[in-house]
Amino acid sequence: MKAIQIIENQASLAEAEMPKLRPNDILIKIKSTAVNRADLAQKNGLYPPPPGASEILGLECSGIVKSIGENVTSRKVGDEVCALLAGGGYAEYVACPEFQAIPKPKNLNWEEASALPEVYATCWLNLFLEGGLQSNNKILFHAGASGIGTAGIQLCKAFDCESFVSAGTQEKVDFCIALGASGGTVRGDNMFEEINNWSPNGVDIILDPVGANYFEDNLKCLALEGKLIIIGLMGGIESNINLGHLMMKRQKIIGSTIRARSEEHKKIIMQDLHKKVWPLFESGNLKPIIHKILPIDDAEKAHKIMEDNLNIGKLVLSFN
Amino acid sequence: MKAIQIIENQASLAEAEMPKLRPNDILIKIKSTAVNRADLAQKNGLYPPPPGASEILGLECSGIVKSIGENVTSRKVGDEVCALLAGGGYAEYVACPEFQAIPKPKNLNWEEASALPEVYATCWLNLFLEGGLQSNNKILFHAGASGIGTAGIQLCKAFDCESFVSAGTQEKVDFCIALGASGGTVRGDNMFEEINNWSPNGVDIILDPVGANYFEDNLKCLALEGKLIIIGLMGGIESNINLGHLMMKRQKIIGSTIRARSEEHKKIIMQDLHKKVWPLFESGNLKPIIHKILPIDDAEKAHKIMEDNLNIGKLVLSFN
Repeated sequence: MKAIQIIENQASLAEAEMPKLRPNDILIKIKSTAVNRADLAQKNGLYPPPPGASEILGLECSGIVKSIGENVTSRKVGDEVCALLAGGGYAEYVACPEFQAIPKPKNLNWEEASALPEVYATCWLNLFLEGGLQSNNKILFHAGASGIGTAGIQLCKAFDCESFVSAGTQEKVDFCIALGASGGTVRGDNMFEEINNWSPNGVDIILDPVGANYFEDNLKCLALEGKLIIIGLMGGIESNINLGHLMMKRQKIIGSTIRARSEEHKKIIMQDLHKKVWPLFESGNLKPIIHKILPIDDAEKAHKIMEDNLNIGKLVLSFN
Repeated sequence: MKAIQIIENQASLAEAEMPKLRPNDILIKIKSTAVNRADLAQKNGLYPPPPGASEILGLECSGIVKSIGENVTSRKVGDEVCALLAGGGYAEYVACPEFQAIPKPKNLNWEEASALPEVYATCWLNLFLEGGLQSNNKILFHAGASGIGTAGIQLCKAFDCESFVSAGTQEKVDFCIALGASGGTVRGDNMFEEINNWSPNGVDIILDPVGANYFEDNLKCLALEGKLIIIGLMGGIESNINLGHLMMKRQKIIGSTIRARSEEHKKIIMQDLHKKVWPLFESGNLKPIIHKILPIDDAEKAHKIMEDNLNIGKLVLSFN
């Protein structure tokens, strides 16, 4: 089969071995995949795949079930699915545990459907399962115009919460507000002052891909019993911490990644998405936010767009 | 009524005003109360009572219900109770919300019953409600011979978990092991090495009253998805943190105090204690660990024992 391989640090389409099917796996003929920031880190050798996962990049896809392992009960050949992957999405075929694939929302095309699994699974896991999101909570998204930010803003609106974003440009902030955020601020010196003005009593959940650079300010703008969820480290890993503040305000700091979690845990997340989130796509309440669709051959070009922080929403790589 | 007052930094018995009964309160004639480390901090002006709470020291008591507010339904005059208090326990009478008082375990005397509410509520809250303790978890208690440590060790044993302690002397470590801890180590240079030897894959929950001094080592000896619960700051408030480690291991840092929590939250904790923990006292599986019973007049003497870290288990102040 054809798959993107890393040749001299460049993502290039080349021949690769077909994936092996384990008894609980399905084999998917991929129609479309999408780019995540983790792909850039993996390409640069900074984010190795978990044990047993494909070495090929790609954490999500849409496609058609081509064959099934002997223990598979929930999917059959011909099913149209989208799937959360531990790797292997930048390829013509991928094998994954059956419960990480769920039916494609009926009204979406292949490219749209491939833009959903990773960001919605990440938001669901962190906002609902880890963060215990409740209606009327106030949520802060750093990098609000990212795939995760644009998914999170819409989920907050759909579940009766207000959100606020930080983003790199005014254009991105305006986009987030049009999408449903209550407000936003351009990254910079006054950022945390603006956040504080928006919610003087603090925010209930912060979904943060930045890490060290924002860490102490994040904790200061967190409400009583608020949760800071660290999902990325674009701004460094070493910081100071004031434990007095953390204790008296009964706050939580939660480190979270989705890729290395157990298959059992991913099953719970994907079943929740199928039951509680996919219907909101089918009713039109949620929509995929896609910055650009490129052919799979242009993976390197798509990576460059993300590296330069030019995208609003997802970058999709199509096999069509 | 008589109550302990702070006169020239000394805890002395003196006259005080009777507490006021709100509609949801009960008035308790106190038989016995007990000392907590928070009392020492409050005496020194470092831990002011939450808004609305009594200025008098004392976070727990046993006694007899003397009168009830007009909305009280669960308690009646004459009931023998023990209660979790936001303050006011070092006095002949205290008023508290009805649901913070639960029946005294039948087989315990007043002094024993007064030694339970604060430490068992703290352990239940943090191990079960915040920490999500499950059977076969491995738990680390710093200050294992404290009231909280000796309660936690027994709860772990009763709920099929293993525990390990750090403590200030070998005598204290031996006491903890006799009480049910799987192992322990004297506070010092090799402490975290010993902890690592006990559980090479890390511990699932750390209940830590120390804070900054142990913080980075605590995080290093925490297992995948482990929880570090900060309940005190005896070893300082400012530390460094490595967010990379936290994120890749999906760990949680939880700041926790019980005193300022809502009455609704305290009600849940006390109902759990009554239903799930008090029967273990009545069956003899759990026992109060009391270092010494002193008359209430000797509150200052009891404080000195705790300041000098001489106690194993609780210091009780009796009105009998």
